Amino acid sequence: MSTAVQQNLVSKNEQYASKFTEGNLQSPPAKKYAVVTCMDARIDPAAAYGISLGDAHVIRNAGGNARDALRSLVISEQLLGTTEILLIKHTGCGMLTFKNEDAHAVVEKNLGAEAKRDLAGLDFQPFPHLEQAVEDDVNYLKAHKAIPDSVKISGWIYEVESGKVRSVV
Amino acid sequence: MSTAVQQNLVSKNEQYASKFTEGNLQSPPAKKYAVVTCMDARIDPAAAYGISLGDAHVIRNAGGNARDALRSLVISEQLLGTTEILLIKHTGCGMLTFKNEDAHAVVEKNLGAEAKRDLAGLDFQPFPHLEQAVEDDVNYLKAHKAIPDSVKISGWIYEVESGKVRSVV
Repeated sequence: MSTAVQQNLVSKNEQYASKFTEGNLQSPPAKKYAVVTCMDARIDPAAAYGISLGDAHVIRNAGGNARDALRSLVISEQLLGTTEILLIKHTGCGMLTFKNEDAHAVVEKNLGAEAKRDLAGLDFQPFPHLEQAVEDDVNYLKAHKAIPDSVKISGWIYEVESGKVRSVV
Repeated sequence: MSTAVQQNLVSKNEQYASKFTEGNLQSPPAKKYAVVTCMDARIDPAAAYGISLGDAHVIRNAGGNARDALRSLVISEQLLGTTEILLIKHTGCGMLTFKNEDAHAVVEKNLGAEAKRDLAGLDFQPFPHLEQAVEDDVNYLKAHKAIPDSVKISGWIYEVESGKVRSVV
């Protein structure tokens, strides 16, 4: 039995594929850049950040976190030729609303001690200040030896209330 | 001096924001699901997978990798109320084209021994077989104690040549 979510995927994808004309795009991003942003449901990176199909890698995780993105960024640059990173966090981010110990407590309450133990070493990587988190992540990437100085890195905030992006660093 | 990529972000975002009307969406995904897919530039998840703004978390990394997505998925489910995961890998994935030792060798050649040392413990998580990788990642999530059995998980392949999605598991 397929779920409503699976049925939505299949039916909407049929419409998309019926009009699809971009099957000849190449794997390396045409505009040679990577975007790191949050998994938040209110963000549509292609539309909000102006990314045409084939132009850029888009890496998304909880918080638009640079550490989580490192493996992907090294592959993006060293194997697929990108030379620039846009790191874009956003207002109203869930990561502003809890601390590590809160998340671990929720896991234990909902899923039991065994699940909590399996995640014992996990840093959920919440952050208390949005602008500071953008700066910290940009600095982390700039300092990392696997991201060469030739890679241009900038930090931004997307406002889910207005749809606007603004520069941070 | 801003780059062409930054100028594109600013100018395209101005157009997007000028027509933006969805500033009242809530943080928890309205349709309570999360998508895990690849960072590949040829994928536009909102369009290809039929995700309306506000409906789903979208997690993207090199390969649509479940292990990399675990932190984000636990936050998605335990803190933001999602109950279903679509894991969608794709044809022509870069992760099919190299082995871990190849990636580490490229890092050493391009960036030197210090960078290679800093990434010594990193598994780039390439995979040799696409369908098998989808099954393996679905099984990994199903077996993980932090993803409860009540979470529905399915695995899919997106064809970058045709724009079509097909069910795997």
